[in-house]
Amino acid sequence: MIPFGQRLTAAIQLKQTPLMVGLDPRFERLPPELTQGVEAQNSEQAAAAYEKFCVEIIDVVADLVAVVKPQFAFFEQLGPAGMNALKNVVRYATDRKIIVIGDAKRGDIGSTAEAYANAYLNPNIDGICCDALTVNPFMGVDTLEPFVNVALEHGRGVFVLVKTSNPGSGKFQDVPVENNTLFETVADEVQKLAETSCSGQGYGAVGAVVGATYPEQLVKLRQRMKNAPILIPGFGAQGGTAQDVVGGFDSAGNGAVINSSRGIIFAYENEKWSDCRDWRDAVQRATVESIAALREAIGAAQS
Amino acid sequence: MIPFGQRLTAAIQLKQTPLMVGLDPRFERLPPELTQGVEAQNSEQAAAAYEKFCVEIIDVVADLVAVVKPQFAFFEQLGPAGMNALKNVVRYATDRKIIVIGDAKRGDIGSTAEAYANAYLNPNIDGICCDALTVNPFMGVDTLEPFVNVALEHGRGVFVLVKTSNPGSGKFQDVPVENNTLFETVADEVQKLAETSCSGQGYGAVGAVVGATYPEQLVKLRQRMKNAPILIPGFGAQGGTAQDVVGGFDSAGNGAVINSSRGIIFAYENEKWSDCRDWRDAVQRATVESIAALREAIGAAQS
Repeated sequence: MIPFGQRLTAAIQLKQTPLMVGLDPRFERLPPELTQGVEAQNSEQAAAAYEKFCVEIIDVVADLVAVVKPQFAFFEQLGPAGMNALKNVVRYATDRKIIVIGDAKRGDIGSTAEAYANAYLNPNIDGICCDALTVNPFMGVDTLEPFVNVALEHGRGVFVLVKTSNPGSGKFQDVPVENNTLFETVADEVQKLAETSCSGQGYGAVGAVVGATYPEQLVKLRQRMKNAPILIPGFGAQGGTAQDVVGGFDSAGNGAVINSSRGIIFAYENEKWSDCRDWRDAVQRATVESIAALREAIGAAQS
Repeated sequence: MIPFGQRLTAAIQLKQTPLMVGLDPRFERLPPELTQGVEAQNSEQAAAAYEKFCVEIIDVVADLVAVVKPQFAFFEQLGPAGMNALKNVVRYATDRKIIVIGDAKRGDIGSTAEAYANAYLNPNIDGICCDALTVNPFMGVDTLEPFVNVALEHGRGVFVLVKTSNPGSGKFQDVPVENNTLFETVADEVQKLAETSCSGQGYGAVGAVVGATYPEQLVKLRQRMKNAPILIPGFGAQGGTAQDVVGGFDSAGNGAVINSSRGIIFAYENEKWSDCRDWRDAVQRATVESIAALREAIGAAQS
């Protein structure tokens, strides 16, 4: 069993890009051909459209990127039918050898956290088994440990929210704690868990979520958590540029995975791609463009 | 449409108890008659057992308590089948006129938070519609607002994690912020949202989660958030006593709802109830006992 941190690093190196595609299906923004004759209120029909949309995106990006990130909320909005679609999407990506980071942001006390961890990180359970899961640290380190334990047992990973991409993330995350901020205090705990998970070598099974919208903090957090891979949302539609994310990488160009969701999956809506053959072609071209932009920015930062 | 805060207060007054029963099904602890012939690994079968267990508990407690709180994690562990069981349990409780507080502890940025809110608080969507939902504030106030907006639109409520019941909750929640702690800073934001939701009259649609395991903090938080109903977990199996929770009530005996899960739903395992006819009888007697213990403690505190 290859530990998650190694597996993630190797997969990114193989595809030669840290870009990850976020799977955030929203009914009203699906390509019209997928919603033709589908009633938005019919959760079975809508879930089938979500599944088809995500599966086709995976087909388009499977040779281009190493990782996809389904956003659980959009599937959950369709109830059990949506969870079934999510399960099928996760399995499809896994069968295509793509790493799946489930964006669920779960968090709860001990035995309940363990149930969540088993639900989404344990391949021996008939659930929705991802390669890694995003988790919320607010309830304390003792509520992260069950996720980490289940992840380690099964070669999976955990990404802890540290500094999130939304405009209001500072309200609680930036409060001063001694000479630091709360998010730096969380980062130190993440680093401890990450270091233990890989005996201090390379990247561990515990990573951090740090928004592209906070590039200065990203630079500091990269230095602060040397064994924690960083999942960087906020690139693209949320306003983060390729230049903003370069601080997330180490000197060898490793250590970060960059998410773009709406800018890629709904590229067909963008006038820039109006000459595309169809929505899949727009997804493909937007992905290639994002990969190139990241490659240029990372190359420039390292030269 | 009666606002959530009023509806909760009235329902508790009608039943004359603030006790809430937590629905936390765990396969290995279900009464043997429910798991006979059921394979734990078969999620459809296990989900059917969870549903039967919860429905029977609801039948037992429907005349005794005003509120139940399903813990999402245990249902999610069974994948889509578990979510379907959860949906049926929520609907069953609602049909029996019991208020359902979904313990999901969700939290995400703007439009994603809105998807979660619709999933669990919007009766016009074919999802799992609860009367209120627990949410995590770590990402900031801007991530709470979509939940509050959807809740208000549909006469539903939101309970924000403020000071959780686990031993390690102090790690991040207790960090000092100016003359307060982080959890008090969160509490002040909860109070603002609660006050706005009810124009400062009585209890609003936004409440707080404060663990019974921190009785001193509970007293202070009751005073600090005069319009926020407090959901108090940690009573019973987690160690909180009836005496520990009295600080959550206002001088009229309102303003709190007290959760007990394992101590009630798995009462049949307790030697104390070994003379019960069956597991349902044990649930009934444990519920009655908890109600009496709370009534005595609250009465003593007010006299």
